[in-house]
Amino acid sequence: MASHFCLLLIFTFFTLVFPSNGSSLSSSKLLPRFPRYTFQNREARIQQFRGDRNEYRYETKFFSQQLDHFSFADLPKFSQRYLINSDHWLGASALGPIFLYCGNEGDIEWFATNSGFIWDIAPKFGALLVFPEHRYYGESMPYGSREEAYKNATTLSYLTTEQALADFAVFVTDLKRNLSAEACPVVLFGGSYGGMLAAWMRLKYPHIAIGALASSAPILQFEDVVPPETFYDIASNDFKRESSSCFNTIKDSWDAIIAEGQKENGLLQLTKTFHFCRVLNSTDDLSDWLDSAYSYLAMVDYPYPADFMMPLPGHPIREVCRKIDGAGSNASILDRIYAGISVYYNYTGNVDCFKLDDDPHGLDGWNWQACTEMVMPMSSNQENSMFPAYGFNYSSYKEECWNTFRVNPRPKWVTTEFGGHDIATTLKSFGSNIIFSNGLLDPWSGGSVLKNLSDTIVALVTKEGAHHLDLRPSTPEDPKWLVDQREAEIRLIQGWIETYRVEKEAKVSLLKRSW
Amino acid sequence: MASHFCLLLIFTFFTLVFPSNGSSLSSSKLLPRFPRYTFQNREARIQQFRGDRNEYRYETKFFSQQLDHFSFADLPKFSQRYLINSDHWLGASALGPIFLYCGNEGDIEWFATNSGFIWDIAPKFGALLVFPEHRYYGESMPYGSREEAYKNATTLSYLTTEQALADFAVFVTDLKRNLSAEACPVVLFGGSYGGMLAAWMRLKYPHIAIGALASSAPILQFEDVVPPETFYDIASNDFKRESSSCFNTIKDSWDAIIAEGQKENGLLQLTKTFHFCRVLNSTDDLSDWLDSAYSYLAMVDYPYPADFMMPLPGHPIREVCRKIDGAGSNASILDRIYAGISVYYNYTGNVDCFKLDDDPHGLDGWNWQACTEMVMPMSSNQENSMFPAYGFNYSSYKEECWNTFRVNPRPKWVTTEFGGHDIATTLKSFGSNIIFSNGLLDPWSGGSVLKNLSDTIVALVTKEGAHHLDLRPSTPEDPKWLVDQREAEIRLIQGWIETYRVEKEAKVSLLKRSW
Repeated sequence: MASHFCLLLIFTFFTLVFPSNGSSLSSSKLLPRFPRYTFQNREARIQQFRGDRNEYRYETKFFSQQLDHFSFADLPKFSQRYLINSDHWLGASALGPIFLYCGNEGDIEWFATNSGFIWDIAPKFGALLVFPEHRYYGESMPYGSREEAYKNATTLSYLTTEQALADFAVFVTDLKRNLSAEACPVVLFGGSYGGMLAAWMRLKYPHIAIGALASSAPILQFEDVVPPETFYDIASNDFKRESSSCFNTIKDSWDAIIAEGQKENGLLQLTKTFHFCRVLNSTDDLSDWLDSAYSYLAMVDYPYPADFMMPLPGHPIREVCRKIDGAGSNASILDRIYAGISVYYNYTGNVDCFKLDDDPHGLDGWNWQACTEMVMPMSSNQENSMFPAYGFNYSSYKEECWNTFRVNPRPKWVTTEFGGHDIATTLKSFGSNIIFSNGLLDPWSGGSVLKNLSDTIVALVTKEGAHHLDLRPSTPEDPKWLVDQREAEIRLIQGWIETYRVEKEAKVSLLKRSW
Repeated sequence: MASHFCLLLIFTFFTLVFPSNGSSLSSSKLLPRFPRYTFQNREARIQQFRGDRNEYRYETKFFSQQLDHFSFADLPKFSQRYLINSDHWLGASALGPIFLYCGNEGDIEWFATNSGFIWDIAPKFGALLVFPEHRYYGESMPYGSREEAYKNATTLSYLTTEQALADFAVFVTDLKRNLSAEACPVVLFGGSYGGMLAAWMRLKYPHIAIGALASSAPILQFEDVVPPETFYDIASNDFKRESSSCFNTIKDSWDAIIAEGQKENGLLQLTKTFHFCRVLNSTDDLSDWLDSAYSYLAMVDYPYPADFMMPLPGHPIREVCRKIDGAGSNASILDRIYAGISVYYNYTGNVDCFKLDDDPHGLDGWNWQACTEMVMPMSSNQENSMFPAYGFNYSSYKEECWNTFRVNPRPKWVTTEFGGHDIATTLKSFGSNIIFSNGLLDPWSGGSVLKNLSDTIVALVTKEGAHHLDLRPSTPEDPKWLVDQREAEIRLIQGWIETYRVEKEAKVSLLKRSW
């Protein structure tokens, strides 16, 4: 639902390239959507991050990867980009750790410059930092260019999670060999889909890394493992806890929008009310623009001002609700909604009019992933949700994917490949050294692991946290619970590394003795 | 080395199909070779097994599989054959176990009728038996036919271990769903490469099965994890322990063969001495025919008469050596060799003359696997080995694979994908419920796991056992150590199932209480 807006441009792109049977894009609801990991004014933003934080310095390199690790089809290799910083590395002989961020669905520079936590703790650990980019994102394009890679379902077909995990495994094995650092422990980091990758790496490649911090990783958001209403219920509750009237205004607004749209010149009037640059084509476009914003607000409901996807105040939902509730008593429901949503779309006050299609793309690949493996059923129910009611319908989902990409999803594959229905037992029995960190305000938290499963599969849950807040850099405004969460993470990672070193030394001295 | 002979026909087949730059087949040494899992007189043999053992009854079914589980390329599905027997199954409601044999590189009926142990214990466990066939073998052919599947490197490209493991995972998940048996525990069985698959299933799909009996599974026979001489050293030692003079005669025979071949009419004379139906083209053909036999003899050096690959007496190496040592004092070295090798190639005495190209094929796929992922370096050293000296040379190996299949091996992939150099730690930390059973006479045992790694990763090693002897049916001639080994296996499997049921019931009662 939240995805509709930002899918527009992407779908427009694809309908130019892929054959289409003319189906309406309005049925493209509910492709699961993580935050838009994209730069607006890319270079300026990187400079800004670097300027603020002088330590965000890295070399950019490329590694030659198999396009298909699991077949021997005669395919061209591709260049996987990675960023590397060895300023603080203890080196191979001291068993200096390697911190590897599992690149997710976007430009790796975005993740590197938005994961301040890793940079903050690197000196303490004497860690080498590497950020390999996820295939088909950023500059890591098969077939030489984005255009070729995204040409059709055949060229896109190797954009899968299993291939990405194998990329990380092959990449770091080769890196260690080249640095004669085979004995150095690797610790994985990842947020959101990147967190899922980090956790799955621990299950599928336990020999590659000694532990993983999987932040806001909804590995249970598949099939019927968690109820499909989870996401929108949590997002709605984030508004309700700030203000019941705010929640109710939003809940009532959808009908008001439709009613307004049905009036003569209704779409024109809505365009004016919401300050769009061009006249709306349908009320659906407006609804999707709004619910996208509410979903993202829930994800980034951070306790201090942040510029994650948009520049926003601290507790942005509180601010949105203040505007909605605080509009004059004569304000219409739609005026209230506009006042509220402006906090999200125009906090700086610099926007004169809003464009519906200004999604800074670079994320199209996620739609492919959602249409193949990452099938996360989502519904919005009448009762607990403030979003328009919607029941997940696999048939339409599948049809939409076919029309868009000419591909059939495999909705049961993820749980077969990675476990699902009894993932707790699987993790408990086979996993170890995974931190599942979650903030309960984050609507993705409902699909993640929220309780300790063993001594070493640990859930760090913060009531007031949102989407992978812990991975962001420390700031003077950090509340105590966030400082505590990060300290717990550091202690656990230290424990993994110490245990690893003790075992390694025990082995070495055993070997020496046997000579 | 042992592989050369049986590769002949296969390579002949491929040179007809694949382009060749005319390289000599004599460089095709040392593709690793497990026993030839093939039927001679297929139907008669199946009938014979069934006649002997009335319980070898199964239904033959087919399951529609993805050709590539890890990409979304638009590929045709293929029909995976499986055999199923539910005579003794306790059923879903009683949590009746499912015993799954991980089909390896051959016709699944061969494995089903040669794995008597599983049939023997099925009634005791109330187990459902399933034998899914490995893709590209038997009748489980992508692209509709063997001819199409084996057409070229593109059609063969999906013949990989990871795809086969995913086949098993998808197959059994679907089977359980159809039987409403989601809660039933699955136990994996496999011998040789099938044992490797069973063990790797436990690492890659821990949620799919509760344990695995991996019999004679050389999962360490990759890269430099074990010395490349391991295989031929063990095979040689099997002969040496029976008789030093036998060992020395064989060791000396290679030069004698070359010397004889260089004489005028030497090849004709060798052809007569060894009773070949057609004149030898080179002494290499004879040497390969011999060392193939010695290697296989080491694998099937069983303590009682068996008809595994060939009808053979009990302790066949002892018999071979008796013939070699016992030939009259005037017998030449080559007469002795002929007397010995006849035990292997003509124990029944029915063969009038030997054909060099009578390899009953059906195994060609293994050469593809050896040329892609299953790169097991093997050398034969001058000192401990009775085989012709040979140093593994990756460049020639690679060249041979290119010339044969137009494919480049990935020699480091298996250890990256499944672990290797520190597999002990990986297994200890992440694996559980795996039995590695090995007989030390088996030359593959040197690449397997021979010691307990944890309470639940258990090595059952028999000094006098050979290649997956424990999977064969019990017989009245079974020595006590074999009876004991199988009893230990049964106890361990019982333990896994009991633990699983206890945990399951605890969970159910916990759920009930929370209502």
